[in-house]
Amino acid sequence: ISSKLPNAGTSIFSIMSAWAHEHKAVNLAQGFPDFDCHPELVRLTHHYMQKGMNQYAPSAGILPLRERIAEKTAHTYGFSPDPATEVTLTTGATEALFVAISALVQEGDEVIVFEPAYDAYIPVIELNGGKAVPIALERNTYAINWHQVKEALTPQTRLIIINTPHNPSGSVLKPHDITELTEIVMNHDLLLISDEVYEHIIFDGVTHQSMLLYPILREKSIVISSFGKTFHNTGWKMGYAIAPPEITVELRKLHQYVTFSNFTPAQYALVDFMAETKHYTSLPEFYQERRDKFRSLMQATDFELLPCQGTYFQLVSYAHLSSEPDVVYAKRIAKEAGVATIPTSVFYTDKLDRKVVRFCFAKQDETMERAVELLVKNA
Amino acid sequence: ISSKLPNAGTSIFSIMSAWAHEHKAVNLAQGFPDFDCHPELVRLTHHYMQKGMNQYAPSAGILPLRERIAEKTAHTYGFSPDPATEVTLTTGATEALFVAISALVQEGDEVIVFEPAYDAYIPVIELNGGKAVPIALERNTYAINWHQVKEALTPQTRLIIINTPHNPSGSVLKPHDITELTEIVMNHDLLLISDEVYEHIIFDGVTHQSMLLYPILREKSIVISSFGKTFHNTGWKMGYAIAPPEITVELRKLHQYVTFSNFTPAQYALVDFMAETKHYTSLPEFYQERRDKFRSLMQATDFELLPCQGTYFQLVSYAHLSSEPDVVYAKRIAKEAGVATIPTSVFYTDKLDRKVVRFCFAKQDETMERAVELLVKNA
Ligand SMILES: CSCCC(=O)C(=O)O
Ligand SMILES: CSCCC(=O)C(=O)O
Repeated sequence: ISSKLPNAGTSIFSIMSAWAHEHKAVNLAQGFPDFDCHPELVRLTHHYMQKGMNQYAPSAGILPLRERIAEKTAHTYGFSPDPATEVTLTTGATEALFVAISALVQEGDEVIVFEPAYDAYIPVIELNGGKAVPIALERNTYAINWHQVKEALTPQTRLIIINTPHNPSGSVLKPHDITELTEIVMNHDLLLISDEVYEHIIFDGVTHQSMLLYPILREKSIVISSFGKTFHNTGWKMGYAIAPPEITVELRKLHQYVTFSNFTPAQYALVDFMAETKHYTSLPEFYQERRDKFRSLMQATDFELLPCQGTYFQLVSYAHLSSEPDVVYAKRIAKEAGVATIPTSVFYTDKLDRKVVRFCFAKQDETMERAVELLVKNA
Repeated sequence: ISSKLPNAGTSIFSIMSAWAHEHKAVNLAQGFPDFDCHPELVRLTHHYMQKGMNQYAPSAGILPLRERIAEKTAHTYGFSPDPATEVTLTTGATEALFVAISALVQEGDEVIVFEPAYDAYIPVIELNGGKAVPIALERNTYAINWHQVKEALTPQTRLIIINTPHNPSGSVLKPHDITELTEIVMNHDLLLISDEVYEHIIFDGVTHQSMLLYPILREKSIVISSFGKTFHNTGWKMGYAIAPPEITVELRKLHQYVTFSNFTPAQYALVDFMAETKHYTSLPEFYQERRDKFRSLMQATDFELLPCQGTYFQLVSYAHLSSEPDVVYAKRIAKEAGVATIPTSVFYTDKLDRKVVRFCFAKQDETMERAVELLVKNA
């Protein structure tokens, strides 16, 4: 059969997790915590399973959870989306991205994406008949070159996909980026998808530049977030999209035919759990400790650490250590040193090797220590 | 923004569930049980949540669950699919349908669907640039007219969507249907999607004619099933697709970008739970009792009951009782009699009113009794 995704293979996350498993490597590749979610969230989910909340939820998510999401948004960004018409629960941020791109991209539309780009963006753009227009982020800082963005705009540009804090680089948008973006949005007929799944994982007191903070931007945006990243339960597959009503209508039309609805008991559980705002307000501090610990341990290795301002990922360069292409290098150190990482060339359309790999530091002290010990000894 | 699904509105299931809720009607509309799933499934899921199985599962599902699905398939149909290359776990049968149609349908392809047709088929075909070729099932028996199918075949016919037991009619394929279908498949270059979510809900000792029973058919088929329908937990959103390796590769490529993976703890729970085959082998008997009870209670009403050979749905005609179009009628009896049903005109491209509505009988005795009492009094 002829493929609908002729350029797509198995996701690098699946490949490296399987490789890590095969070689019994410490898995710092795919982005998930090795500590558990809060026991209260487990208790509450069990409670609602026992109470029999085991049948279909409304397609957009139960209203009380959409209300909680609106409250969290108001608390965090001073903007309260309308739960009835602007908030949609999805099967993880993955489904939110899928329906967002599918709702907005038509045959022939151009979509600006910044590379390194999360692996799902471009295949989904192409599946919808769109053309991805990749723009490389600046070397080392991974900042957006707005001059290049402006040059890339054409009458076919339908959409820009923003991702801040940025996976895999850990860079974050700054106020001057918002100024540039606002100017573009005001002068062109285009929309934004803003992948903000690491919204609460940002360091050094910097403010996350959510599209939701800015009326001109949020009017044009689908903002995507993830409970899995925020509440340490990536395997529960819960995320959401916030968008203006006329866009939300289209998201929901797709969502009802893509998955229809989401795991019901955890929806009720999250309503209770999120009543305590500390479950998300404590996150920057919690992950700053992880980041600082990991970076300090990594001083013992010969890697060059790139800056990390957000996300739970740390990029390192090994250019001075090996001439191997990053995919070969990542597979080898997983096998020989016993630490799995993600090579970053896969996040570029040109697949060019930059000799940069990504470590996930959403890990317990012992895991980090063991990984670094292995790297020092064998990498 | 211009819609990617210009012909789609809110699904009838969402509309009628909301309407039932608003008018405090007994909800016999959307298909879900009002009894609970087995407490053991809840206990096991809680167990694995507590054990910390809360992060991403492999995209295709954990291997032990795919092995269990293969065992169940072998036990039921004498055919054991390869868990590594032929079984894919999805976010309910809804996602399985979505990725199956999306993997197979290209711009300009024609897809034969039988009407009344489950509401997701046609929008997803159209979203992928395909053309749905609807064929009406026979009046009252809801059997397939194979002569019409053969007439409808063209060189563009890429796919036939089979649904047995059939929602909403409760009709089931017979051996002679398999003969006809086999002839078509052998003489035409086309594939099958077989929606078999009610595979275990079939009555009067009749054998479910799964595509998996027939080597010639299963080589060309994506067979879709649902844990939600089988284990009474529709809100858990777990389903799966069985297909030959070369098709499964394409399903998984899409699945990884649509949802990536499924709720992890319940995957482990199902591995344990399904070790006892009685959890699915007891289903025909269990639901036969529901069907017989419902049909016998309904004798007290003036409705004409149509045949029901499978699924947990009962069609009734009210043609002799009211001249109202079915959508109007269904809304009115939900409001006035307090019993919500699904009008069936929405499952036809022509939207013509046939004066037939669908009742869901996956309900406890008391619910059925109360519904019928309300219908007798007020409908
Ligand atoms: C959906 S698997 C990928 C997880 C992730 O966000 C990452 O590792 O970048
Ligand atoms: C996904 S909601 C629809 C449930 C169902 O299968 C039906 O009511 O027909």
